[in-house]
Amino acid sequence: MSRPKPIEYRDAPVEVRAVFDDIKNSRNVPDVNNFWKYLANDPATLRRTWDSVKEVMAPGALDPLAKEMIYLAVSVSNGCGYCIASHTAAARKAGMTDAMFAEVMAVTGMANETNRLANGYRVPIDEAFDR
Amino acid sequence: MSRPKPIEYRDAPVEVRAVFDDIKNSRNVPDVNNFWKYLANDPATLRRTWDSVKEVMAPGALDPLAKEMIYLAVSVSNGCGYCIASHTAAARKAGMTDAMFAEVMAVTGMANETNRLANGYRVPIDEAFDR
Amino acid sequence: MSRPKPIEYRDAPVEVRAVFDDIKNSRNVPDVNNFWKYLANDPATLRRTWDSVKEVMAPGALDPLAKEMIYLAVSVSNGCGYCIASHTAAARKAGMTDAMFAEVMAVTGMANETNRLANGYRVPIDEAFDR
Amino acid sequence: MSRPKPIEYRDAPVEVRAVFDDIKNSRNVPDVNNFWKYLANDPATLRRTWDSVKEVMAPGALDPLAKEMIYLAVSVSNGCGYCIASHTAAARKAGMTDAMFAEVMAVTGMANETNRLANGYRVPIDEAFDR
Amino acid sequence: MSRPKPIEYRDAPVEVRAVFDDIKNSRNVPDVNNFWKYLANDPATLRRTWDSVKEVMAPGALDPLAKEMIYLAVSVSNGCGYCIASHTAAARKAGMTDAMFAEVMAVTGMANETNRLANGYRVPIDEAFDR
Amino acid sequence: MSRPKPIEYRDAPVEVRAVFDDIKNSRNVPDVNNFWKYLANDPATLRRTWDSVKEVMAPGALDPLAKEMIYLAVSVSNGCGYCIASHTAAARKAGMTDAMFAEVMAVTGMANETNRLANGYRVPIDEAFDR
Repeated sequence: MSRPKPIEYRDAPVEVRAVFDDIKNSRNVPDVNNFWKYLANDPATLRRTWDSVKEVMAPGALDPLAKEMIYLAVSVSNGCGYCIASHTAAARKAGMTDAMFAEVMAVTGMANETNRLANGYRVPIDEAFDR
Repeated sequence: MSRPKPIEYRDAPVEVRAVFDDIKNSRNVPDVNNFWKYLANDPATLRRTWDSVKEVMAPGALDPLAKEMIYLAVSVSNGCGYCIASHTAAARKAGMTDAMFAEVMAVTGMANETNRLANGYRVPIDEAFDR
Repeated sequence: MSRPKPIEYRDAPVEVRAVFDDIKNSRNVPDVNNFWKYLANDPATLRRTWDSVKEVMAPGALDPLAKEMIYLAVSVSNGCGYCIASHTAAARKAGMTDAMFAEVMAVTGMANETNRLANGYRVPIDEAFDR
Repeated sequence: MSRPKPIEYRDAPVEVRAVFDDIKNSRNVPDVNNFWKYLANDPATLRRTWDSVKEVMAPGALDPLAKEMIYLAVSVSNGCGYCIASHTAAARKAGMTDAMFAEVMAVTGMANETNRLANGYRVPIDEAFDR
Repeated sequence: MSRPKPIEYRDAPVEVRAVFDDIKNSRNVPDVNNFWKYLANDPATLRRTWDSVKEVMAPGALDPLAKEMIYLAVSVSNGCGYCIASHTAAARKAGMTDAMFAEVMAVTGMANETNRLANGYRVPIDEAFDR
Repeated sequence: MSRPKPIEYRDAPVEVRAVFDDIKNSRNVPDVNNFWKYLANDPATLRRTWDSVKEVMAPGALDPLAKEMIYLAVSVSNGCGYCIASHTAAARKAGMTDAMFAEVMAVTGMANETNRLANGYRVPIDEAFDR
């Protein structure tokens, strides 16, 4: 047996339940999504990752919607199927409309194209950008 | 000789000058940055890329600042040095503050981390995210 | 028809059977896994890849477990689903415990995060690291 | 001005100095390396990243050398120049010999090759690996 | 509901139908493949992407087969499952034989390996390559 | 000291000299390029990599120019600076014209864009492509 298995609340040790409870309360959801159930195999990483996500994704200079769209753009760029699905849902919940989704995709695609054109033509950084 | 060389306005054929003029007018800058001078080695790709960038980055459901920050996040994720430098500058020009820059970096870093945790734990997509 | 098909031992030409036999003997397994059955569509690449894997993964300055965990970390970073599954199994067979797996994931996630923070902040290499 | 600048100890606010002091004490070094000086532009990310790195890289089921070699392999795979330089140095300090370095590179190269062969041949996951 | 849905011809607005018709005529196929049906959620991106693909993939200094094999190699390198499937089919249609497919895979795998060896050994660019 | 150093012919052990001689003879060049001088720190990897490159890049169903352009496209996609420089030079030597270079870049850029559009829209593989 080598494939990780999800940990459900009822089978979770107390330190995992504490994180699950915090996620459920923070997000006002009845259960945590699969990502957290799998991370629960390593309670220290579950705790550290949740604390970091909570801090990083909190409203700040950017609002939660802007942050979720950036998260989605990175996940699309990396080709992480789970992350694309979960962060599309999260961005939707934070207010992403169909038109916004389409623009996130268009910008992400364009950036991936021009990143490679810059690589291939070996474009040196303009002095003005390096100050 | 195999390294591409930049094409300056004074040496450029008429179809390249037309694109350079459009970039300078659209952005209100005295000269185009290196990316365009190198792409000018292929006038068709210069024209197509500029037309696409102009269309994709225009204000729409997302404002230009949000789009530039997404562009930056993707460039950071891909490790394109030129693109990180040029799109940090472009996002700054569009209004990105120090605090916003810091949050774009934090979200981009976090997304790259959790993308791999989801990969490694082979997390199946929640039914709710797949509808 | 464009999707590659696996080559089973009974249908394999003699040079493929020779590689399959060597894999089965080296690993003490009754059959080769799918990766090799698909590579068998190109006997030269099958032979070259197996010879290289055998040389690279042999015990040396690093033991097979350390090598399998590095292989897994790279596969997770690249998001190769097949490779994550097969090298998790291989690392398990070489002795990776649940706790070790959790730490490989934590380090891989962390490295992916800090790689992007270094990219985004355009951190110059310390002189001491460049000697 | 858009390129981030390093924050030196003498110019750092108190919460940054506290992290710098902890890094210097933990690693027994006279100064922190550039990565931390640049992250100091965002004290919250500096603190969160250092706390996470300290937790993740501590001796556990894997020793610090094994963890540093995994970190290096991921950084090489991602092509992060700064990270390759800093984690080669860190792994050296933790005991990586020339022979170990050579094997980390060989495994990392091989994994990147076979990851793409598995992608391109669209190899389905063996049932035994998916349990 | 957050997963994008395909747009079929019968339900498509007139500007989408125009692109679908152009694809079907250009490729002499009875229906467009899924990629275009999903992009049709954003008619502007559908139009821009198709116009770009048509321009880029047209016979030029390179023939369509060479271009499709490059497209396939990049898709394999990026691990895009959909793109690997669709561009293997497209390359087959353009004349890619089994032997050619095997060589595209072998070169793509090799390049991914040596890219990382060059990264990890921090090989400086030869002066002759930088002119 | 942690940065690898190049091994010059005059300082190289006999098994490294043998590989260097073979490279120089095969390519009809007076000296090997930096990649091989750095790999020479690990004679087994030097030997294995050269033997593999020689086998993979030999004329077959694809000619050397087609193979070098695929190698370049992958290197551009991965953002490996050394590899982009060396394989641009190699492709030039094999006959790549300015127009061919421009088309390799255009296809590589396009593929990177559409790979992400396919990821983000979660396009399912057409049944016809999966046979």
